[in-house]
Amino acid sequence: MNSNSIDQELSRVEEYYLEYLKSEGAASQVGDVLSDISHSGGKRIRPRLLLLSARCGPLYEDRRDRLCRLAALVEMVHAASLIHDDIVDDSPLRRGKPTIQSKYGKDRAVYAGDLLLSRIVRHLFSDHFEDVGDLFGKAVEDMCIGELIQMHNLFNPGATVKEYYRSIYGKTAALCRLACEAGAIESGCSPSDVEALSAAGENFGYLFQIRDDILDFISDEREQGKPTQSDFRGGIMTLPVLYVLEKGGRGREAVESLLKKASDGTFSDSDEAELCLVVKKNGGLTQAMLDMETYALKALDAIGALQECETGKIFRTMVEALKLSR
Amino acid sequence: MNSNSIDQELSRVEEYYLEYLKSEGAASQVGDVLSDISHSGGKRIRPRLLLLSARCGPLYEDRRDRLCRLAALVEMVHAASLIHDDIVDDSPLRRGKPTIQSKYGKDRAVYAGDLLLSRIVRHLFSDHFEDVGDLFGKAVEDMCIGELIQMHNLFNPGATVKEYYRSIYGKTAALCRLACEAGAIESGCSPSDVEALSAAGENFGYLFQIRDDILDFISDEREQGKPTQSDFRGGIMTLPVLYVLEKGGRGREAVESLLKKASDGTFSDSDEAELCLVVKKNGGLTQAMLDMETYALKALDAIGALQECETGKIFRTMVEALKLSR
Repeated sequence: MNSNSIDQELSRVEEYYLEYLKSEGAASQVGDVLSDISHSGGKRIRPRLLLLSARCGPLYEDRRDRLCRLAALVEMVHAASLIHDDIVDDSPLRRGKPTIQSKYGKDRAVYAGDLLLSRIVRHLFSDHFEDVGDLFGKAVEDMCIGELIQMHNLFNPGATVKEYYRSIYGKTAALCRLACEAGAIESGCSPSDVEALSAAGENFGYLFQIRDDILDFISDEREQGKPTQSDFRGGIMTLPVLYVLEKGGRGREAVESLLKKASDGTFSDSDEAELCLVVKKNGGLTQAMLDMETYALKALDAIGALQECETGKIFRTMVEALKLSR
Repeated sequence: MNSNSIDQELSRVEEYYLEYLKSEGAASQVGDVLSDISHSGGKRIRPRLLLLSARCGPLYEDRRDRLCRLAALVEMVHAASLIHDDIVDDSPLRRGKPTIQSKYGKDRAVYAGDLLLSRIVRHLFSDHFEDVGDLFGKAVEDMCIGELIQMHNLFNPGATVKEYYRSIYGKTAALCRLACEAGAIESGCSPSDVEALSAAGENFGYLFQIRDDILDFISDEREQGKPTQSDFRGGIMTLPVLYVLEKGGRGREAVESLLKKASDGTFSDSDEAELCLVVKKNGGLTQAMLDMETYALKALDAIGALQECETGKIFRTMVEALKLSR
């Protein structure tokens, strides 16, 4: 039982994932869309969280194959949400490749996402994942609500940090929580361990999303594989920006004026440079970094409540790996 | 046990439907979207089919409440699909009211549909509908494939009647089949009755969709509550049009030229009148009417295989009610 065996399990997850995405006898363009999804890569963070959590349970060894199938389903939820999110963000690229919606159109992307969701439902029932099925439904519901809150606040200088946290709970934390919770339940963890792992997953998710927001301000297009400041251009209010808005004063005025340009579609490269400067100068980036560290600590605290097992060690490594140097 | 008691059950279905659509504590616009959905009316055909089928099973009386909840979930699948379909069709109206996407935007409509799907999943698991859960997943998958086939053939004069039937299986027949199959299984019908009712539902669905296609050619906007020939304007190849295309000759040429106008967005009211004329003159409407009658007979045949019960009588009335005079 070491990190190497997680990699072995992840290969099996990948096999199930590809199998579940296969289309039989349907119109060829359905196959194209799904094949594109299956080859889009990704770090498989959520399956990793699930398998890691499952190691804490007494049934882990017996249910390894079953857990790999469950992990593939969690990754499918993530894939479906990415497809539907790309429609909304209007993003041309994800991980340096064209998004489904930019390649096949918004309309086809709607159904490609739905198709994935329907397959998840089928496998949850056919593999008798009754103990965790409603958690999947709850996570997808939370994801939708998170996106709806975000959409409600597009280009809205009145958006708050509090709303941001409600939104990213759905956008990211809920699915990370599901991964850990489902892995813990299916492997027969005690209720207190299920709760500890769920909390760890949730806080890991917050950490992960805040980090993503921060990266938009400290990296360039080449590194990220997507256009820089695409969130701001699309009106998505990220944490560093929200802190500047809440602080008020000149910083707020500058962000409001840049936001108007983004909304009008006149946001230029020099505006982008100004945004970065304003956010850094007014402490938005620092405050977001502090929040990120808070969630890293919360994740580690939750892990600390577990009975000692290898999971804690690997989890800590994952959290440490996400830290950004200030 | 009479049609009056179906209406009583449908009131209970309505209560569950409203309860399931309720949003608690979420951002207010989520509530708006769901409230709009819940008040959009509709004939509740699918819950009716489910409750009707359930009358054939020995557990019907004991499980009436449970069956009403299941019927509400089937209606939610229908509502979710309408929301996502409206995005694709770009239709401003449904049943004379603005569509979710025209009122709230495509993006919000994507998540409103997803939210419904997630709630369906939650209720399927929390109410332990394990015997029919995978059928729900399968139906949604078929619906997506049907829509993807339709989309593949948008504005395509090479589309075939065969592809049309594969598409409307998913668009309409699959969910009617699900309604009947789920009602039959949950009420403990024998396997042969489950099969007879499923086949009846499926053929009823075909009949229903073909009828919808035909109505676009023989009714005006006021009656339908949506713009006439909206399918053709949007490039959707309906059965009467496809028959003219497959026949070839001058009729095909005329349709191709009108299709080009629709694709260019220059399809005028006089073009609409010409389309109706061409489709009628070249037998497209007559052939579609004949197909509709064939499916009505198939539905009645399937019902005929049932042990005699009240269901057959009501089902026959429903099929008869859909017939159009030629």
